[in-house]
Amino acid sequence: MAQFMDVHHGMKGITADQLQQAHQADLAIEEDEGVHFQRAWADPESGTVYCLSEAPSAEAVQRIHERSGHKADEVHAVPLSV
Amino acid sequence: MAQFMDVHHGMKGITADQLQQAHQADLAIEEDEGVHFQRAWADPESGTVYCLSEAPSAEAVQRIHERSGHKADEVHAVPLSV
Repeated sequence: MAQFMDVHHGMKGITADQLQQAHQADLAIEEDEGVHFQRAWADPESGTVYCLSEAPSAEAVQRIHERSGHKADEVHAVPLSV
Repeated sequence: MAQFMDVHHGMKGITADQLQQAHQADLAIEEDEGVHFQRAWADPESGTVYCLSEAPSAEAVQRIHERSGHKADEVHAVPLSV
């Protein structure tokens, strides 16, 4: 398992409820791909959302996000962290 | 205090030691601006680094990064998180 950071743009005005609902939608199906979404952070002003996950691949992360209706614009493996 | 995610591009090939050293350089002076850098994640392949912090402002985050020699390309307030 590796760690991934994915980024969504174009989410201007996202609310706390919408972020929570999107995260729950991912959690509900993440096991299908062996993914776990750990955290997410949103900037409603610029419309940027960052999601931190553990997953077997970037493609697995993206497949869950696509099925939940919010495809990521970028998915980066982040093998280094402090 | 608010939470911020900042992003650095152009860090291709960054190593675990370099990420640790950069983080330590921030921690050493972060109190001057009332900032605390909590986590950082790096993708050496695309050269992207994400830093999560608590700070009084985006400008305070940037001042610490500038003094440490690694100005961020983006600093986003992330008032929403899950």
